[in-house]
Amino acid sequence: MKDPVHDEILFDDSLLWDLVNVPAVQRLRRIRQLGTSYLTFHGAEHTRFAHSLGAYETMRRVLYHLQRECGWPKDRRDERLALSAALLHDVGHGPFSHTFESVLGIHHEEWTYRIILEDYELRKTLDGVDSDFALDLVSILRKEGRFPAIEALISSQLDVDRMDYMLRDAQATGVSYGRFELARLIRSLTMTDGRIYVKSSSLHTVEQYLLARYFMYVQVYLHPVTVGSDVLVEKILTRVRDLMSEESRVEVPDALARVLAPAGTDVAAYVRLDEAVLVYAFHLWSEADDAILRDLSARFLHRKLFAPVVREDPSQIDLAALRTTAKAMGFHPDYYVSQRQCIIPGYDVLGQGITLIGANGDMVDLSQASKLIRTLVPSRENRLFLPKEMLEESAGSLGRRARSIVYSRP
Amino acid sequence: MKDPVHDEILFDDSLLWDLVNVPAVQRLRRIRQLGTSYLTFHGAEHTRFAHSLGAYETMRRVLYHLQRECGWPKDRRDERLALSAALLHDVGHGPFSHTFESVLGIHHEEWTYRIILEDYELRKTLDGVDSDFALDLVSILRKEGRFPAIEALISSQLDVDRMDYMLRDAQATGVSYGRFELARLIRSLTMTDGRIYVKSSSLHTVEQYLLARYFMYVQVYLHPVTVGSDVLVEKILTRVRDLMSEESRVEVPDALARVLAPAGTDVAAYVRLDEAVLVYAFHLWSEADDAILRDLSARFLHRKLFAPVVREDPSQIDLAALRTTAKAMGFHPDYYVSQRQCIIPGYDVLGQGITLIGANGDMVDLSQASKLIRTLVPSRENRLFLPKEMLEESAGSLGRRARSIVYSRP
Amino acid sequence: MKDPVHDEILFDDSLLWDLVNVPAVQRLRRIRQLGTSYLTFHGAEHTRFAHSLGAYETMRRVLYHLQRECGWPKDRRDERLALSAALLHDVGHGPFSHTFESVLGIHHEEWTYRIILEDYELRKTLDGVDSDFALDLVSILRKEGRFPAIEALISSQLDVDRMDYMLRDAQATGVSYGRFELARLIRSLTMTDGRIYVKSSSLHTVEQYLLARYFMYVQVYLHPVTVGSDVLVEKILTRVRDLMSEESRVEVPDALARVLAPAGTDVAAYVRLDEAVLVYAFHLWSEADDAILRDLSARFLHRKLFAPVVREDPSQIDLAALRTTAKAMGFHPDYYVSQRQCIIPGYDVLGQGITLIGANGDMVDLSQASKLIRTLVPSRENRLFLPKEMLEESAGSLGRRARSIVYSRP
Amino acid sequence: MKDPVHDEILFDDSLLWDLVNVPAVQRLRRIRQLGTSYLTFHGAEHTRFAHSLGAYETMRRVLYHLQRECGWPKDRRDERLALSAALLHDVGHGPFSHTFESVLGIHHEEWTYRIILEDYELRKTLDGVDSDFALDLVSILRKEGRFPAIEALISSQLDVDRMDYMLRDAQATGVSYGRFELARLIRSLTMTDGRIYVKSSSLHTVEQYLLARYFMYVQVYLHPVTVGSDVLVEKILTRVRDLMSEESRVEVPDALARVLAPAGTDVAAYVRLDEAVLVYAFHLWSEADDAILRDLSARFLHRKLFAPVVREDPSQIDLAALRTTAKAMGFHPDYYVSQRQCIIPGYDVLGQGITLIGANGDMVDLSQASKLIRTLVPSRENRLFLPKEMLEESAGSLGRRARSIVYSRP
Repeated sequence: MKDPVHDEILFDDSLLWDLVNVPAVQRLRRIRQLGTSYLTFHGAEHTRFAHSLGAYETMRRVLYHLQRECGWPKDRRDERLALSAALLHDVGHGPFSHTFESVLGIHHEEWTYRIILEDYELRKTLDGVDSDFALDLVSILRKEGRFPAIEALISSQLDVDRMDYMLRDAQATGVSYGRFELARLIRSLTMTDGRIYVKSSSLHTVEQYLLARYFMYVQVYLHPVTVGSDVLVEKILTRVRDLMSEESRVEVPDALARVLAPAGTDVAAYVRLDEAVLVYAFHLWSEADDAILRDLSARFLHRKLFAPVVREDPSQIDLAALRTTAKAMGFHPDYYVSQRQCIIPGYDVLGQGITLIGANGDMVDLSQASKLIRTLVPSRENRLFLPKEMLEESAGSLGRRARSIVYSRP
Repeated sequence: MKDPVHDEILFDDSLLWDLVNVPAVQRLRRIRQLGTSYLTFHGAEHTRFAHSLGAYETMRRVLYHLQRECGWPKDRRDERLALSAALLHDVGHGPFSHTFESVLGIHHEEWTYRIILEDYELRKTLDGVDSDFALDLVSILRKEGRFPAIEALISSQLDVDRMDYMLRDAQATGVSYGRFELARLIRSLTMTDGRIYVKSSSLHTVEQYLLARYFMYVQVYLHPVTVGSDVLVEKILTRVRDLMSEESRVEVPDALARVLAPAGTDVAAYVRLDEAVLVYAFHLWSEADDAILRDLSARFLHRKLFAPVVREDPSQIDLAALRTTAKAMGFHPDYYVSQRQCIIPGYDVLGQGITLIGANGDMVDLSQASKLIRTLVPSRENRLFLPKEMLEESAGSLGRRARSIVYSRP
Repeated sequence: MKDPVHDEILFDDSLLWDLVNVPAVQRLRRIRQLGTSYLTFHGAEHTRFAHSLGAYETMRRVLYHLQRECGWPKDRRDERLALSAALLHDVGHGPFSHTFESVLGIHHEEWTYRIILEDYELRKTLDGVDSDFALDLVSILRKEGRFPAIEALISSQLDVDRMDYMLRDAQATGVSYGRFELARLIRSLTMTDGRIYVKSSSLHTVEQYLLARYFMYVQVYLHPVTVGSDVLVEKILTRVRDLMSEESRVEVPDALARVLAPAGTDVAAYVRLDEAVLVYAFHLWSEADDAILRDLSARFLHRKLFAPVVREDPSQIDLAALRTTAKAMGFHPDYYVSQRQCIIPGYDVLGQGITLIGANGDMVDLSQASKLIRTLVPSRENRLFLPKEMLEESAGSLGRRARSIVYSRP
Repeated sequence: MKDPVHDEILFDDSLLWDLVNVPAVQRLRRIRQLGTSYLTFHGAEHTRFAHSLGAYETMRRVLYHLQRECGWPKDRRDERLALSAALLHDVGHGPFSHTFESVLGIHHEEWTYRIILEDYELRKTLDGVDSDFALDLVSILRKEGRFPAIEALISSQLDVDRMDYMLRDAQATGVSYGRFELARLIRSLTMTDGRIYVKSSSLHTVEQYLLARYFMYVQVYLHPVTVGSDVLVEKILTRVRDLMSEESRVEVPDALARVLAPAGTDVAAYVRLDEAVLVYAFHLWSEADDAILRDLSARFLHRKLFAPVVREDPSQIDLAALRTTAKAMGFHPDYYVSQRQCIIPGYDVLGQGITLIGANGDMVDLSQASKLIRTLVPSRENRLFLPKEMLEESAGSLGRRARSIVYSRP
């Protein structure tokens, strides 16, 4: 298959091709990889389906390299586990995933495990290998430690997931920040005693990869406009849930209603939920009886997003005053005044660190070898989100030194 | 703004930025540029919104070149007309546009004119320039001949529309076929007596551009799998309309029902229709009472598309036999056996030809100067679309020499 | 190794790495791939060394594909022959090769065979495989028919030589004309009965490749300014040879003198000849006693190239009058007035045609399947080259309808 | 003109085009941008001519941006000074420049000033503007402070020189490390009170640019194999100079001899020196009577480079023992055993720092705003270079913990 990132995605094994064609996987075509980011970067329309194929292809290339250089994986079943895990690692994602999760307290990982085990067509395909295959897949995704090398390639600081999404997100948004030398990075991997290491001669290749990740966070993933649109979706869903719990009249598409129901739902219902359902709901709600829901939904559809205010010193913001101003202007402060703390992840030395291995077998954590990487510690940024209409009225409550950044054009 | 094709899209004029932010334009974010092509090329998720911005940016660069080299456009109003026309030329497109149009007999061009004139926010913004601005825009899009150079740049064989979409579609799908030298092509344009010409020294640049277009048609736009998925959408809509006219019970989302209504609808309703609404409807219909609608909708959602059969000699196909086989297998032949004639457009010398102009002022049509271009005449390909399940049973009726191409992996 | 075209060039087999490090191969670092083209396209500085590595890498990928899909080559010796032939196919090239050959009547192919057989280090390395290896290599390069598939991959209309140089030349010059889908083209190759075919489903991929070649010829390889600089080198070498045969005093670097000597030379002397020697000679000659040699050499060094005049109807040019004008202006017409007929090669159906093979085994020549390819017949262009100083004075002798194109800026 | 980095290089002003065509500028076609790096990265064949055009084009785009946004430069003469300075800033470079300079104690900057003032054709062209133009150019290149903004754009930590060479070197070598967002970086520039600043909203764009520079140093510019080939050229030139001072017989091409002469030389002789002359000399010397010169020159031509040894703790190396081993093996230690300390430049806060300017006019040095940039302090690496033949014999003298890295394949 043609792919804008990897040029060609190759399928040698019919198992993998069959997995691609399962409805639960095809559903990922209807879920964007970067949630609401397309409202900031208009190119960010790529889907979790494309990313899943890309993670698979990256794994295929990693395995080709490791097989030639280290003779691993030895057996075909391990190879199929690695490839299947790469293809299916995101199968539990829902629409606007992270927002959805924060409102509803569900986790896409749990849905991934459930879908692998309970979705009829998917499970049947996996059982075609052997009756433990689906269980082993879930064991890998749960990182239970039974397949340490595959687990590291699926989920660590240097995994096929990140390798694909950084390149894909960078290309789709049109920024160069996420680019790194994929082929060289893959060739930097090696295996000793069943674990994955990076050759110490490839120090700078890994530095570049981790810095690319840093830049993607500050420039794309945590872009204030994107966080603002996430907050908007969150407030819409919160309002709907509040209305439902008040038993107010609000129309909710069935697939969504079942997921929102307190009792939760089953896999068959969950896989019917995608972005089309949610956007359709926003259309419905933009004509709802409830004025707040109506306004918030119209803001999303017409991209009248919340304005982000970034404050270095949060103590200067007078939140009470802002809530009062909001109320005075007719904005319910619970839905229209929001604070968020955004965390730019650093390099994490604990447990999951990237270990360099020298030609002589010496091992050292990446952070010891690189001063640049040591600066990559988690950092936080406080942000406030308001309707643009409030910005002028609220100037006094936003703190003297606050920069009010209205990023309307990325 | 960052753009994956043009790197940066620049807005110098607040009019254009205001137009971008009108809901009727933002709606184009919810309509894919290439309809169902994403089911063939998983990267083809880019929207008509991104293309509209790209056509605007291309026009901006064309005008920058023509102003430096030919002193045109002389006045700012013409410049704004050209830029606005580029941005708005696709504003009337609906979801899965061409399919929709063929079922319903509506034309997106007519909706474009109506939206420009009747959409409240859009019209108000345009009226901010002067009271004739919206009318002149429509005059340009209708090609009434009052602004010949702008009209040619908006809609001809060498216009900013094609220049952007070929590059954008090529990048998104990951094929290199659509690439050409944009900067050089723009610099090849010149103006004499108020009309646009191509410098004859740029013959090969234009040849490359037109061949790129040919390759995009044969490889992407008319890819048999894509045509098959278009046919599927068409059959779904046809079935719904048939059920509605039979007054059978079928749930139709309001925004769609109003467009499907025999009396037609107004602009305010039309702009609420987008792909989310349609895909949501497919979800609904995949659980409809009607077995045909239910099956066709599920086929779309789960990508169980029709298999294309390409026949060089259509007379060998025994269509009556195929319909009988379909019926015997439980497939209603009106919905499950379809023929399509696909036309690969050629270079069109009539009326709209590309004229080369020499340093001495001599003019000649491109087709006279290039043997390659003369081969670009329209060609047709007959295709038959069937459920994959029918392929084996129908082998005898498909003609001895027919190639049965089941393109499952682009 | 990093490579700007293929990203990475991989060496698995020490034989190939040893061959790269032989002085006769390292010498190709001092010979540009495109001769004097760098005077037209300033990026065209890439060397025959880089291209040789690229042809090797392309062969490596072709073999990887054919081994997976067709189980060929079966034995390691054939694989090594194919890879070595790709790496060494250009080892006999000299500086400004084609020009040199036309003046001196030598052929780089003959030098390639001789170097492979006679260069001490190269032959010793090849003999390390077995005593017939070098002879078999030459047999392949001579296309004696003993290794038909390898020969076709090394030298045909669809060989690793062209695949690499088109991409490399396009990237270096900065034109997009030469790009095509390499990975897909490689995957379109298949083998039946020991011969290479192209799958008929890849028709358009091959069309694109051959059109890219056409565009590279008309836009890059036969660019009038480049042909003009080739003519200049030719006239310099002709003047030197004429002076030598007249026994006039002219300083000639030893390595060049031995190649120019009527008795010819041996391999050890030939491999000392490279562009540095030639450019150094131009420096010497730019201060020679002979006024013609002095002027021509300075023109080359300072890029005061001949101006090309392209004539559609050669009969209108009054060559006698031009020679008279030249003489009157002090330009010896034998060295300053030149005609050249440039041939743009077409698709060649005879003997070397590209054969498509269908899923059913049917074979057809590419030209039968593609109307576009049938237009690719050889075409000629008549060109005249003069000192720029003569253009004005000669206007009357150049023919009324002639376009005088002074391409000073590509 | 087509350019592989900037796509198109545009000339609007005939002054600049005339400067391009002066022989002293054309000579830069015969001097590679990265000296001996092509022996490490085979793509690094690009010339100082291409880079000079690229620096010009980058300046053209910077000025276009600053004129639109800040109305600077106000007059055409300043614009021409800026463009000419960008084009000519490297005109004094010689072959293998830095090596040459270290042996001979000459500085290319001084030659740049002299060539601008003394080269006949160049000076005549510059005098065509006005009689002070050449002097003002030299004043800018000398950074005398009379044109602070132009000086900063020509030579600072954020200048058109670096912007072009990083992109060009990255593309030519095929590494992605040097890429950054050029268009965005240019748009981040602003001017206040006649000085250039970077908008603080573009913090991450500048971070990316400076990190790209860091990576280019560690991966490309200071690649141990490249430093080893520089050392080799240095030793060759040293040996020649030593032989000349001993009045031993050694053939030296005239253009080189005049530059090597103790009395120095004039501009007319200097501009005849280029890489062709030097490589020709290596050819001559590879057959010299002196065994050391003969061996060193052959090593260069046949790429039998010195092997680099990187030591973290230099005290462990027993240099005396190494020299003894060298002598015992027949290698004169002065020419065959070399130490080098390589300095990776950091961000330099002193004097030349990059200053960010906020929307409110607040200014802050980049290093204060960015933790990443603060890690970019100069670092040193000790390296030893030996003939490969010595590596095994010298194992004991190289220090227990030393890594012996034989980078033969970049």
